[in-house]
Amino acid sequence: MTHYNIDERDIMFNLKECPGLEAIQQTGAFEECDTETVDMIYETSANFCQKVLAPLLMPTDREGLGFKNGQVTVPEGMVDAWEQYRELDLIGINSEPEFGGAGLPHFFSAPVTEMECGSFVSFSMLPLLTRGAARLILSFGNDELKNTYVAKMFSGEWSGTMCLTEPDAGSDVGAGVTSAEPEGDHYKITGTKTFISWGEHNLSDNIIHLVLARIKGAPAGSKGLSLFVVPKNRVDADGNITGPNDVTCSNIEHKMGIKSCPTCVINFGSDNNTIGYLLGEAGYGMRYMFQMMNEARLEVGVQGMGQASAAYLSAVNYAAERVQGSIMEEGGPRPAKIIEHPDVRRMLVKMRALVQGSRAMIYHLTQYLDLAHHGEDKAKYKALSDLLTPVCKSYGSDQGFRVTEMAIQTFGGYGYCQDYAAEQYMRDSKISSLYEGTNGIQAMDLVFRKILMNKGENLKVFGGEAIALVQATAGSDLASMGGILKEGIEAAGATAAHFGQRMASGEHDEVRFHATDFQEHFGHVVVGYFLLKQALVASRALTGDVSDADRTFYEQKIVTARYFFDALVVPAIKALEIMRSPNVAGLQAEFV
Amino acid sequence: MTHYNIDERDIMFNLKECPGLEAIQQTGAFEECDTETVDMIYETSANFCQKVLAPLLMPTDREGLGFKNGQVTVPEGMVDAWEQYRELDLIGINSEPEFGGAGLPHFFSAPVTEMECGSFVSFSMLPLLTRGAARLILSFGNDELKNTYVAKMFSGEWSGTMCLTEPDAGSDVGAGVTSAEPEGDHYKITGTKTFISWGEHNLSDNIIHLVLARIKGAPAGSKGLSLFVVPKNRVDADGNITGPNDVTCSNIEHKMGIKSCPTCVINFGSDNNTIGYLLGEAGYGMRYMFQMMNEARLEVGVQGMGQASAAYLSAVNYAAERVQGSIMEEGGPRPAKIIEHPDVRRMLVKMRALVQGSRAMIYHLTQYLDLAHHGEDKAKYKALSDLLTPVCKSYGSDQGFRVTEMAIQTFGGYGYCQDYAAEQYMRDSKISSLYEGTNGIQAMDLVFRKILMNKGENLKVFGGEAIALVQATAGSDLASMGGILKEGIEAAGATAAHFGQRMASGEHDEVRFHATDFQEHFGHVVVGYFLLKQALVASRALTGDVSDADRTFYEQKIVTARYFFDALVVPAIKALEIMRSPNVAGLQAEFV
Repeated sequence: MTHYNIDERDIMFNLKECPGLEAIQQTGAFEECDTETVDMIYETSANFCQKVLAPLLMPTDREGLGFKNGQVTVPEGMVDAWEQYRELDLIGINSEPEFGGAGLPHFFSAPVTEMECGSFVSFSMLPLLTRGAARLILSFGNDELKNTYVAKMFSGEWSGTMCLTEPDAGSDVGAGVTSAEPEGDHYKITGTKTFISWGEHNLSDNIIHLVLARIKGAPAGSKGLSLFVVPKNRVDADGNITGPNDVTCSNIEHKMGIKSCPTCVINFGSDNNTIGYLLGEAGYGMRYMFQMMNEARLEVGVQGMGQASAAYLSAVNYAAERVQGSIMEEGGPRPAKIIEHPDVRRMLVKMRALVQGSRAMIYHLTQYLDLAHHGEDKAKYKALSDLLTPVCKSYGSDQGFRVTEMAIQTFGGYGYCQDYAAEQYMRDSKISSLYEGTNGIQAMDLVFRKILMNKGENLKVFGGEAIALVQATAGSDLASMGGILKEGIEAAGATAAHFGQRMASGEHDEVRFHATDFQEHFGHVVVGYFLLKQALVASRALTGDVSDADRTFYEQKIVTARYFFDALVVPAIKALEIMRSPNVAGLQAEFV
Repeated sequence: MTHYNIDERDIMFNLKECPGLEAIQQTGAFEECDTETVDMIYETSANFCQKVLAPLLMPTDREGLGFKNGQVTVPEGMVDAWEQYRELDLIGINSEPEFGGAGLPHFFSAPVTEMECGSFVSFSMLPLLTRGAARLILSFGNDELKNTYVAKMFSGEWSGTMCLTEPDAGSDVGAGVTSAEPEGDHYKITGTKTFISWGEHNLSDNIIHLVLARIKGAPAGSKGLSLFVVPKNRVDADGNITGPNDVTCSNIEHKMGIKSCPTCVINFGSDNNTIGYLLGEAGYGMRYMFQMMNEARLEVGVQGMGQASAAYLSAVNYAAERVQGSIMEEGGPRPAKIIEHPDVRRMLVKMRALVQGSRAMIYHLTQYLDLAHHGEDKAKYKALSDLLTPVCKSYGSDQGFRVTEMAIQTFGGYGYCQDYAAEQYMRDSKISSLYEGTNGIQAMDLVFRKILMNKGENLKVFGGEAIALVQATAGSDLASMGGILKEGIEAAGATAAHFGQRMASGEHDEVRFHATDFQEHFGHVVVGYFLLKQALVASRALTGDVSDADRTFYEQKIVTARYFFDALVVPAIKALEIMRSPNVAGLQAEFV
């Protein structure tokens, strides 16, 4: 049975000290949010994840899904887990109480999502998607749609999906051919969507699909897409299910991981009898979907990090117990725990740096989402949220995967065996670099939409924050990291400016070629910023009166940051520089 | 069905132009080896791998192994494949004809191993292990052992294993407790070995285990280990099987990948009735085993590279066919193959650079093994072989895994689905960083045994070769790469010297902490050397009269090298530098 390990101290540091809760409270929008609320949510979620979800992780991977006559059956244990989960009332955590939400800040959802993903990622996607779909209806739906669907989705009575991808429209969503034809107060929907996570299952009475489709006569491309609410089963005005809506599941994918999350092919209108309701205005589908996607992208970053944290902590525990080799002492050699071997310590400190660094970035970003809507600096936090969303998604998933790989390596040969969860963390984790827009798509978003089209303004806002931090560390023990951060910010700025010039010279492909590498190395600089920010908090805390355990924790925050700057930020600066060199041999590659 | 793609042109370039065959012929030891021999071996092997092995890759992963009453049953199709394979007579390719070998150079085994691993890695391990075990008997056994076992193993009538690992003796082989007690002309063997690849199966009548065990009274640690030939079934003087030898399989591992390669727990002497024959002299077990391990480590490097090459080429083919997004042209946008997108091209060129770079290093190293035994510069090639073996093993496996990961990313969501082989290449590939000594163990071997204990002599030999190449490129179009290579050699030398000083100051842990990073970044420099060497060959070929196809191939060799130097060698130099900085924050990490 998998024991799910949680880095409670680091999560609490992020929630309560960085400045976390305090910044949220200062907005005045969440007055009832105090440390008791944070503790209660944490404990409720941690308890559920450790006791109910984690034990299901490995058995459900082996059992897999049933699929027969268009019906998906999840492994037995998940039915009970879902019933228990619904009682926690966490799906609407960050949404309006009027429709069954808890009215709490986004920030509070970070630990909940981290722990759900870390303990049982296939399961975690059901509440994530349901939350996202319900929030879309809440944001853009008319009263009827809101009244009919939202509360039932927040309660988990019904679940939700997002239907973008089609067989020939993946990264290029605008190529979708699913159509919508007006008929009275609704539309007839026809088309096939693929890779629909939790598109069909036996955990809820109804599944509410948010479907991108093109109203007959609408223009080609993404600007011709509208968004529709398409229930699996039709619903009357009182919210009662009246019968099927011609929405069928024709296949489920067999995947490397997340094996108990059904990934479905969903057919709408096979009998020309699927009705859907326009959400908001026609032609705004992609714009609306971006709200969901931005939140979902952040959550995929959390997902990568959450699994990485679980894998890292399981590796620490294993390394602290496994005896192998010896350590030379004065009286001769004695058997060693592998955690004593420097090469194992190297893996562990690197894993910790990537996990805690990702957590620092991601928790801050969830907070920025709140601060972009409440408080005095909305524009600043909007800029930071926009800039950092693709970084969080790609960094959390890519580096999270890297961490799961190092966890396997720490376990040695046992890491390759299915007796431990290590190998599953890696298999499950791989999806996160692929869905919600591949990380290559995130890089295009970062470089083109979030930096160049924005004329570098978002980047300047981030740079301003970073330089303020550099100044705050000047003259202190942390100044050397501040110096490296300053170089990193300058390198990223110079490379972004270089990209702008190359675009102006018509060398678009050169910029596109470098975008993913830029995203990775800029990511290291960004995470360096957040780790230094936390090192400063830790350093200040150390001047006060602290317990031994806290002293160690704070000192280790600084050690982690120092390791990260040396091992990851310094080479990243070099990599950012190289992108400005005239040599673009890679572009001349031919594959014949 | 998996189509297995082979980079025939690049393999032939390595075999025939770099200088490959010519260098082998100049030793005078392999006069009969001409281009016809190379072509015949290549074609025999390629044909078998594409037609027989590749179609089994995916079905056998799904079917897995049977295990009942201590008997392992492989998937049906493998029985026939093994019969066909035996007819090719490739197991003894690089061994003495007197015992059924083909008497060819090691170098010729490189493409054979690459293709077997690339098409069906689980299968490939059976001939690899059998070859290794037979060659050990050939090298160190008395006439009786040689006459009884070797020819039957080279013919594939019997197979072989290497039995090192025990439940509490993995990386620390010297902790093994399997015992041997003299009894007449043989020994009684008692103990349990774990992670024994192909330790039990139904493809051969007998399995010849090469077992490390401690003769009663021998000292503790690895110097007390001797090597024994322990057949599964006893054999009389005429080579007839006379009955079982109390060798039993009590379990097989359930693994992330290589699912049709049985990984066994093997018990010797459960009924106190296992007999084994001492191989060579008592107490020389580890020394003998190192012959097998060095060849096996090189072959694990080939394995990582072979799978990476298959994954890379499948990604190229997919990218050349898959339509997604559009390219802007004068008349407006047109649908694009994803291979036209710069971000996809970035992945492909990086994959190619890593695959072709690894191949260049590995094929050269197999040649060095021959040149270390034949020809005029034996000492030089011995030094190069010693130095590069851990680099080949770790680089081929780590970077090979990276390539399989990028292949998945190229396929997008489909890369995560089991409709394509991409996800299996990644799962199968992961084992190669773990077995035959984890890559962390390789790093210890490289830094301590191959560099520091050798007082840097091996490194100087390699540096001399590299500087000669730098001089050969001076003044040419390739000079900029030569300049980077020179920096890389200097950086590696300086860091190795720094390690020596730190050891002298008693800072052993600091050196151990950096060993894996050193191995990775030194690996980039080494591969840069081989790619530049090949670029020079290509550049010279381009001055002659070449076909259009060859012109493209040679030009692309230079493009690949340029990309590799910029993207991988330059940051590696920075990373090597950082290891000399006084900051070793990572060593201060505590995991509480």
